[in-house]
Amino acid sequence: MKENEEIIEALLKFRNERDWEQFHNPKDLALAINVEAGELLELFLWKNADEANKEKVKEELADIFAFAFMLAEKYQFDVKEIVLEKIKRNAEKYPVEKAKGSAKKYNEL
Amino acid sequence: MKENEEIIEALLKFRNERDWEQFHNPKDLALAINVEAGELLELFLWKNADEANKEKVKEELADIFAFAFMLAEKYQFDVKEIVLEKIKRNAEKYPVEKAKGSAKKYNEL
Amino acid sequence: MKENEEIIEALLKFRNERDWEQFHNPKDLALAINVEAGELLELFLWKNADEANKEKVKEELADIFAFAFMLAEKYQFDVKEIVLEKIKRNAEKYPVEKAKGSAKKYNEL
Amino acid sequence: MKENEEIIEALLKFRNERDWEQFHNPKDLALAINVEAGELLELFLWKNADEANKEKVKEELADIFAFAFMLAEKYQFDVKEIVLEKIKRNAEKYPVEKAKGSAKKYNEL
Repeated sequence: MKENEEIIEALLKFRNERDWEQFHNPKDLALAINVEAGELLELFLWKNADEANKEKVKEELADIFAFAFMLAEKYQFDVKEIVLEKIKRNAEKYPVEKAKGSAKKYNEL
Repeated sequence: MKENEEIIEALLKFRNERDWEQFHNPKDLALAINVEAGELLELFLWKNADEANKEKVKEELADIFAFAFMLAEKYQFDVKEIVLEKIKRNAEKYPVEKAKGSAKKYNEL
Repeated sequence: MKENEEIIEALLKFRNERDWEQFHNPKDLALAINVEAGELLELFLWKNADEANKEKVKEELADIFAFAFMLAEKYQFDVKEIVLEKIKRNAEKYPVEKAKGSAKKYNEL
Repeated sequence: MKENEEIIEALLKFRNERDWEQFHNPKDLALAINVEAGELLELFLWKNADEANKEKVKEELADIFAFAFMLAEKYQFDVKEIVLEKIKRNAEKYPVEKAKGSAKKYNEL
């Protein structure tokens, strides 16, 4: 079994044992990702770029991945496929010759 | 090569071709995850739980995964490992007999 | 003194007594708003639209206002002025005849 | 009329002319605050703390205030009152002698 299938299987098992599928609609999963993203962000608040607590970053990042995988599963997206597809699109929006060394958004390049 | 190693390799290639590592410190990657999470959330705004545009969800979710994988790479976290570890911790915080069918937070169970 | 000047005065007094101005740069204030917005959002997670705890909503919303007022102060924005200005702009983006009863974004109207 | 009553009156007029009250339940207003907070955050992404575009900050911050005022109105909170109340609570969580010059969270002081 592929790695991400294993992750999703473990997440669904955890969810189903608790009978939580009823709460996990796409909108609330998107909310959950935002809630966890905010908790990750808090670890960097008032701090320099690399001063966050590594163990806590690990936990919050794991939470983001967990809900992101569950949302992907809802729509039957293959995570590797959609990320590689997005890289391809971004390569068009950010051609190397224009974007190299620049932090500008594509519509400002 | 494992699936998630392939994803990360593709992301770093894209990043390095554009000389963007200089911008990708952990704090700004955490910011980027929040920005993308907000864009995902917008797709559900004022809507019922399953009315978001599937193609757009795919794109925004891919962006979240992309930055989340890059942040994981910064700290050398293995994504499968940290998610499975978090499931284990959550299983302790949310024992089946208490959490079944309940949307309450662990400290309210 | 106007209401919002009073709010800002109280916030700056609190901040200065603790010597926190050094942390309150615009970027971190924007982060703080996101962190607090995430905490507000959590109160609605897995719930129906009006099931959040009112007392907790009050606290999280107060936190959002606090950081938003402090960010406004950094740029010397008058809150009433910028909100009324934004309403005017939005009235152009969302003309009544097109937008009435519709939750669509202006670029989809 | 007090300043914040005027702001809320203008927001409700704008909303009612478009018949949007039907969409503005508390949960979606909390979502909207998060969406706008993410747009504010994007202005600081990959940038130094004070390099955001001031005009754009003004607009995004105005959006955050707009939805925050509308959520306050839903619960009939007086904004000045809830912010001053929160300052009082925070003064207990962050006593000057402990918190002075420190960016730590209250539970780590």
